[in-house]
Formats: sequence, structure tokens, C-alpha cells
Amino acid sequence: MVDETLFDYLHMSIVEHYNNENENDVETASAYLSQIGYRVGYSLGERLSKENARYRDELDTVKYLCKELWICLFKRQVDNLRTNHQGVYVIHDGRFRLLQQTLTTMNKPIDSNNRLHTLYIAYSNGLLRGILTNMGYPCRVTAEIVDFGVRFQIEVNPVVGQK
Amino acid sequence: MVDETLFDYLHMSIVEHYNNENENDVETASAYLSQIGYRVGYSLGERLSKENARYRDELDTVKYLCKELWICLFKRQVDNLRTNHQGVYVIHDGRFRLLQQTLTTMNKPIDSNNRLHTLYIAYSNGLLRGILTNMGYPCRVTAEIVDFGVRFQIEVNPVVGQK
Repeated sequence: MVDETLFDYLHMSIVEHYNNENENDVETASAYLSQIGYRVGYSLGERLSKENARYRDELDTVKYLCKELWICLFKRQVDNLRTNHQGVYVIHDGRFRLLQQTLTTMNKPIDSNNRLHTLYIAYSNGLLRGILTNMGYPCRVTAEIVDFGVRFQIEVNPVVGQK
Repeated sequence: MVDETLFDYLHMSIVEHYNNENENDVETASAYLSQIGYRVGYSLGERLSKENARYRDELDTVKYLCKELWICLFKRQVDNLRTNHQGVYVIHDGRFRLLQQTLTTMNKPIDSNNRLHTLYIAYSNGLLRGILTNMGYPCRVTAEIVDFGVRFQIEVNPVVGQK
């Protein structure tokens, strides 16, 4: 149990830390958390690239992220993946794990306007960006809280990311 | 592999982040990391207290920390535990995991004067303090790098910690 728990507690702890340190500036706190996630994702992407066969194209890479990788990262598969086939991907995870934690811990309903909830998805946002960037697809990731889950929108940079 | 890796990368990432943010102030960076560790340890101590029978005395609790818990936290047992039986415990881990990471990642020899190495033990310092505090033994923890490992010194507060 401890590996997973240690990660969860460490994640919660840094969210709370940045929340306290930047009390009136949710954007700065989010940016810090996203940077940390980006670094983790970038390192992870490097390791995954070594361990796995190179995914050929953008869509295959995003599918790999949503299936195999999502289970490792967030303990479940995504509920839905949509794409416009022009570099935009929308991933919906209806019970996003790192957000569910806040429910359990804080005993509060999920609300996209709650600043702490927003901070709870900032790390993951950076994480996805870091992974995809290292795998050859620099991108912009935005996230919004929807019902009990999170919807991530990934826009792969068509110029830099094209292979 | 991913749980452990994610934790390791997240730990490395926050160390580097605080190192960059507090470039000329290793004490502030250490204090932040230690606070984060403390929070994680405190939460973990709470969970462990619920899951395990209460350890009766201070020595039993420290032994539990050094045997069962150390394996979960740092993937090995401690090499040596000494005590003066007056609330001071010295734990030596000759190949401290979170420090070995820096060797692997940075390809640099361990040196107690290297500021990044010092930061790599600050989180663990706070972690131990948080665990013991929640288990009923408020304490002070200091750490120094010795050869290839770390020596932690724990001083249990004899007034507050006495049960």
C-alpha cells in the first residue's frame, strides 16, 4: 500500500503547500504545480520511450496514454477520448483519482470554482504535457472539472510536433 | 514500476524546484522540503496508527520505524540503530535510497557539502519527524551524509512525548 499512499500524500502535501504560499494567487500556485508535473512527465516519458517501442504517430501515442499509461498514472482507464483529427484531443476521466482524493480528505463537493480543486489538477496537467512533449509531441494542455471528473484538452503543436 | 517511479520523480522534481526557487538560501529550501515531508509523515502516521496495534513505548515505536516501515519508505532496512535510552536514537542507512537517486541521476559523487545532496535528505527528515509525532513522540530530527548513506539523529522530546 505504501508506494501509492506515499505518492498520494506527497501530491496532497505539495498542493497544500503551494496553496498556503500563494494564498491570493491561484495562477502562480497552479503554474508551480504544473511545472513540477511537467518535469515528472518529461522524465517519465524518457523512461517510457526507452522501455517501449516508439509509437508511430500522434494518435497512437495519445491512445497509448489513454489506455496503458492512464491506468499506471491514475489507476483507471479514461472514459472517453475524442479528437478532431487535427491535433486536438479531449480526454474525459469521469472519476479522476487525484481529485477524488480531495473529496475523501476534505469531505467537500467537487466544484470547479474551488481554488484547491483547481490546484489538484494542475500537477496532472503538467504531467501530461511533459510526457507527450518528451514522446515527440509538444502540446498545450488545459483542464476543467466536469461533474465528478476532469476533462483534459490537448492541443498538439502541429508545427513543432509533426514528425 | 510506475508507482515507485512516479514517487521518485515527484520527489526529485520538488527538490529541484525548491533548489531553483531559493538559489542562495539552502536553509529556506530545506525548511520547505522538510515541512512537506512532515505533512506526509503526519498523514502516514495517522493511517498507520489506525491499521496497526498501538506500539506501547518509544523504543518499540522506533524499532517499528526502522524495521517494517523503513522497508516501505526506503526499500531496505536500516543498517544500524543505536540509542542512549534517554530519548536519543541514531539510525544509519548506509545506502539511503533517495540519495542514491541523485548519484544515478546526476552521476556525481556524494558529498555532504553539496547543496543539492543536502536538499535530498530534507524531505525524509521531515517525514520521520511527522510519523513519530503523530504516533505520540514529538521529536527533533537532524541528518548528515556519511559515506554513501545517511545518519539520522532523532531526539524525542522527553516532556511532550512522554506517555
